[in-house]
Amino acid sequence: MADHALVTLDEVRAAAGRIGGVAVRTPLLACLWSDPDRPLWLKPESLQATGAFKIRGALNAVATLTEDERRRGIVAHSSGNHAQAVAYAAKLAGIRATIVMPDVTPLVKQEATRSHGAEIVLVDPEERDTYSAKLVAEHGYVLIPPYDDPRIIAGQGTVGLEIAADAPDVDVVLVPVSGGGLSSGVAVAITALAPRASVVLVEPELAADAAESLRTGELTSWTTAQTYRTMADGLRTPSLGQLPWEHLRRYADRVVTVTEEEIVEAVRVLAAKARLVAEPSGAVATAGYLFHAAELPAGRKHVAVVSGGNIDPAQYAGLLAGRA
Amino acid sequence: MADHALVTLDEVRAAAGRIGGVAVRTPLLACLWSDPDRPLWLKPESLQATGAFKIRGALNAVATLTEDERRRGIVAHSSGNHAQAVAYAAKLAGIRATIVMPDVTPLVKQEATRSHGAEIVLVDPEERDTYSAKLVAEHGYVLIPPYDDPRIIAGQGTVGLEIAADAPDVDVVLVPVSGGGLSSGVAVAITALAPRASVVLVEPELAADAAESLRTGELTSWTTAQTYRTMADGLRTPSLGQLPWEHLRRYADRVVTVTEEEIVEAVRVLAAKARLVAEPSGAVATAGYLFHAAELPAGRKHVAVVSGGNIDPAQYAGLLAGRA
Repeated sequence: MADHALVTLDEVRAAAGRIGGVAVRTPLLACLWSDPDRPLWLKPESLQATGAFKIRGALNAVATLTEDERRRGIVAHSSGNHAQAVAYAAKLAGIRATIVMPDVTPLVKQEATRSHGAEIVLVDPEERDTYSAKLVAEHGYVLIPPYDDPRIIAGQGTVGLEIAADAPDVDVVLVPVSGGGLSSGVAVAITALAPRASVVLVEPELAADAAESLRTGELTSWTTAQTYRTMADGLRTPSLGQLPWEHLRRYADRVVTVTEEEIVEAVRVLAAKARLVAEPSGAVATAGYLFHAAELPAGRKHVAVVSGGNIDPAQYAGLLAGRA
Repeated sequence: MADHALVTLDEVRAAAGRIGGVAVRTPLLACLWSDPDRPLWLKPESLQATGAFKIRGALNAVATLTEDERRRGIVAHSSGNHAQAVAYAAKLAGIRATIVMPDVTPLVKQEATRSHGAEIVLVDPEERDTYSAKLVAEHGYVLIPPYDDPRIIAGQGTVGLEIAADAPDVDVVLVPVSGGGLSSGVAVAITALAPRASVVLVEPELAADAAESLRTGELTSWTTAQTYRTMADGLRTPSLGQLPWEHLRRYADRVVTVTEEEIVEAVRVLAAKARLVAEPSGAVATAGYLFHAAELPAGRKHVAVVSGGNIDPAQYAGLLAGRA
């Protein structure tokens, strides 16, 4: 995808037109409990029907398939939230979907994906990308990539479009980063529509490949042995995608990394004070706001994206009860 | 308030104009996990900044005070969510507020109310109404009633206005009932704008005074010793207010009562499947949908109001972990 130009604001706007009515137009939620000198608003993408922002990109990608591609069916590889999103978007469009998942994917995400009628194939995390390529070669399925794709970036960018519309005076936008689809799309929209705002990427310390890439100026991969140490199972991608990398080296203002303890505390704060069920991956941007104020750009109005809320109920109860 | 005519759709619309921009315009959330023959959407009022729908009525009431009334300051009595709402609305308007709370009010609700700058007075549950009347007589404060007031009913009715706008084809609207402010306002809007829909009140079996009132045709009170048995601390009002009673005997289609076990299970389902933190009072309408299908009117599209999410973190962790 390296030969594709950067996604434009017009592409993000076109995506918004395609996904409206299915993706939830999530509100910005004021946090009365946040620091009055740097008030926080939350963008609760956990409220999407499939529990995460991923539905935006999936709906946009599926909406742009040709009739021939629709007939062939689609395949996706994902640790979970992209899987559910693609399965659901395929179901709505009446298209056959096959989802390749790492065999360590939380059961709740496997089951939710299956419930949308998709076929699930479980593989070793190392094989995730190669196995879906094999299915494309053997069966002619069309691959819907999780992040390294302009249609996906444009779809996720609608999150940024809505933030800019609801908070044109935002100063700091905190967004989780892994493959970089969400953060790239948000950065495109925010840079164009709220140019005074900084876009801050937030990443687990235990899967900080994007932080390393942006620090060194070289797109860097971490091993799955490294990235799978974080509990944030949606953020274990070994590296930014090539196309997201092109966006983020240009648009991202900085990267903040958060510890596992900070992620757990952010999950608890989101439940107790914002009444949102967030999965660990969905809580990292809030953790950045709560625990890394000194590393953030100067500015008053903060927005943190709560990117998803799909977590095993037993794990969630344990986190809230302090048995992390 | 018995001499006030029923609240009109125009009054609800005027309230919507007054509270816009502060009250969150909550989305309807599709539940992909609900019964496909009677699909469910949730109206997550738990996402309001003070954690419950009550902010709508409080903002509307405060917006209509005269200059003299604003100078005198306001008083409210509440088990918690109305308290926070009035305190916050007063703070935004720059008005002094005193809140009379039952001494059994969960600490989390007391603290949140205090955080908005209101003065708190804790009293025995039996004295709640009389004590605030005393403050009105002694200090000239203006009482902002929790439900028996046309301004409050009109404000809460904006929930129904939004449901009708987002789901004009709704068949069944499930709404919790206690004093009757929310349910009356919702019924006004739904009856006018989605006339084919039934409005179903949901109440804890252990505080089922509204069910008894509507069954017998006589406005009936339960003792606080009775109503305080339910864990749904927002629904322990001894009876419907007089003005809500006039609305509900005319507009409510039926009442469903739910058990404590059903409430707990609904709290868990809302966390696991809808990613919403609901307090027990906020989960009763969902409990009605989940466990009382046979008692509901025939119809396809259901909406349940998740009225609030203010719950002590330790109690919440216990409920999710099965230590109810």
